[in-house]
Amino acid sequence: MTPAADPLVLTTRDGRGLVTLTLNRPDAFNALSEALMTALQHELDTLATDESTRCVVIAAAGKAFCAGHDLREMRASPSHDYYQTLFKQCAKLMMSIQKLPVPVIARVHGVATAAGCQLVAMCDLAVAASNARFAVSGVNLGLFCSTPGVALSRNLGRKAAFEMLVTGEFISAQKALAEGLVNRVAEPDQLDAELGELANSILAKPRAAVTLGKTLFYRQLENGIEAAYIDAAQTMACNMMIDSALEGVQAFIEKRPPAWQQA
Amino acid sequence: MTPAADPLVLTTRDGRGLVTLTLNRPDAFNALSEALMTALQHELDTLATDESTRCVVIAAAGKAFCAGHDLREMRASPSHDYYQTLFKQCAKLMMSIQKLPVPVIARVHGVATAAGCQLVAMCDLAVAASNARFAVSGVNLGLFCSTPGVALSRNLGRKAAFEMLVTGEFISAQKALAEGLVNRVAEPDQLDAELGELANSILAKPRAAVTLGKTLFYRQLENGIEAAYIDAAQTMACNMMIDSALEGVQAFIEKRPPAWQQA
Amino acid sequence: MTPAADPLVLTTRDGRGLVTLTLNRPDAFNALSEALMTALQHELDTLATDESTRCVVIAAAGKAFCAGHDLREMRASPSHDYYQTLFKQCAKLMMSIQKLPVPVIARVHGVATAAGCQLVAMCDLAVAASNARFAVSGVNLGLFCSTPGVALSRNLGRKAAFEMLVTGEFISAQKALAEGLVNRVAEPDQLDAELGELANSILAKPRAAVTLGKTLFYRQLENGIEAAYIDAAQTMACNMMIDSALEGVQAFIEKRPPAWQQA
Repeated sequence: MTPAADPLVLTTRDGRGLVTLTLNRPDAFNALSEALMTALQHELDTLATDESTRCVVIAAAGKAFCAGHDLREMRASPSHDYYQTLFKQCAKLMMSIQKLPVPVIARVHGVATAAGCQLVAMCDLAVAASNARFAVSGVNLGLFCSTPGVALSRNLGRKAAFEMLVTGEFISAQKALAEGLVNRVAEPDQLDAELGELANSILAKPRAAVTLGKTLFYRQLENGIEAAYIDAAQTMACNMMIDSALEGVQAFIEKRPPAWQQA
Repeated sequence: MTPAADPLVLTTRDGRGLVTLTLNRPDAFNALSEALMTALQHELDTLATDESTRCVVIAAAGKAFCAGHDLREMRASPSHDYYQTLFKQCAKLMMSIQKLPVPVIARVHGVATAAGCQLVAMCDLAVAASNARFAVSGVNLGLFCSTPGVALSRNLGRKAAFEMLVTGEFISAQKALAEGLVNRVAEPDQLDAELGELANSILAKPRAAVTLGKTLFYRQLENGIEAAYIDAAQTMACNMMIDSALEGVQAFIEKRPPAWQQA
Repeated sequence: MTPAADPLVLTTRDGRGLVTLTLNRPDAFNALSEALMTALQHELDTLATDESTRCVVIAAAGKAFCAGHDLREMRASPSHDYYQTLFKQCAKLMMSIQKLPVPVIARVHGVATAAGCQLVAMCDLAVAASNARFAVSGVNLGLFCSTPGVALSRNLGRKAAFEMLVTGEFISAQKALAEGLVNRVAEPDQLDAELGELANSILAKPRAAVTLGKTLFYRQLENGIEAAYIDAAQTMACNMMIDSALEGVQAFIEKRPPAWQQA
């Protein structure tokens, strides 16, 4: 485990390609200051071209997952240009998670509010402690969580998303599970075990198939079903020609485990 | 409480900007006759430019919420042009709910069928009595609920929406909750309390943030995620420059309630 | 009941227009060989223009519903062109289900994996035995189920679909029901009764309304809500001018059953 130079995000890596990025402003409930966003962006940019990375976890230090933007910092620069730049930076960061070729899992404990809730929504997968809570609470301060709403409304049903956005109220981990914001809920002391199970399942797959698949998954969602099928059929044909797929299918036929050598 | 001149829709308004529109054809189960649609359209058009309105409830008098189109009236004019005009009128009415700058909550009791079910689906939020029932039952008469299907398929999953449309069968309030058609279900004698709680939460927010947010919410849903983020980031920058947001964030930093003066 | 000439798909038809297509490669768990896909395509093409057909069931012989592509056949021709053609054939087959003018119900027992799970997702409706299981398991062999993902991500929420695709793990019938992949779950010995109830409901409706409605349903899902409403309003106006609708509405007004004569 090698902590990164930048203490705002702790980066650890295991021997299998599992990288954990830990938001590390615990005293500020990991509020997304410009500096923290820049640090996280830097880590994601580095991972985007690192072929030894096979799965990423976004976790958080301290009592909360993430409390959203750093409001003190934000309030200190009351100009439209500044806010425009800030929210653009944040949107780019969020899209970097979706664009990362490998799966990203949110490990959520405590509260995830506003852009912190958006972070959960933008991850491909999310595992939450049973006492975690989620809200897009900006509206309580007069700032509707419009950018979090982009992510939220692509995870939850329309009415459930709108209710969260307009009331600013918390939902429980169980409700987040039922609504589609998280994949799994575990008792706090079982959170890492549950996360590990999910990550292990991903690490057991050939990286090439996972990255082709993730990229296609989000691309086809943006298109009509006919165009989506054309794209997906081409992707599968490419995927099938990769050595690991040819070996995987051959192994299946021969009723033996695939002989994959993985990074 | 001031009843409007037009008895087909009763309009009441409280001192906080909560407007209740009550469909008032109880003997016809509030079937959407041309006259009732015209009256409701008129109320919505008026509210659309009334800055003192901050939340709207659509409720209904008598035993049912709304039984859909007025079939007797519809059957009396069997011409393609007439039906074309009628369904266009209805679609415009339904879109006016989504386009209204403030949130609209359906208060549902009894049955909501066909265009009545569509009305629920088009509202931003819905609270239902536990004995309410929902159906898109036109297919039982040979008239597939195509326009209600537009709204329904944007609230429910694809298979659940299709099943309702092709079978015409009722679903319960609990099922409607699980599927995403309504936000909350209450015992009949608790329906107004539940509705009030939701409305109060909205009335406690600055109107400017809510209207910016609602408008953006539906606009971004129509676009791809990259375009949605650009739009939402601009919206948040504008939102942040509004006095109520600057004060709300400042109050949060100072750990005091915001000093908002609201209409 | 008349078995078709081609034994890969058994076609039976009852006197009411209910057609059952039974995948009939039980020893291969109904894997979709080229020949089976061709046979199924042929049946669907024939039904597409047969006005006496009013509802289609896709069922399967033997222990499994469908295990996806025929991997042995696929592995035998390792060329990009071959795979391109194969996945295009499969995508066309899947779209033929959605394009068929009448509703298609999947009758699922045993396992439905990869393209077999896609088949369930592409049907308009699905009824599953309580011990049925669903997976998009290609990733286990290094072949991400990209084309099944097109269908799956239009049935389930984003995170649930991605989890299935990236882990390759099975979900139960109950989970498939909760996620929106199937409409109803029944004990194995009640599966045909449950299916029959759903089919009977469809057979009781005028075919013209059902086909207009199904076609519009998928078409409007591909468009923005304004365009969807214009299309749907035109469709309803056309629907209302059909004799069966005029009679259905008249019968409703007169509180009598409609006098429909159906194929």
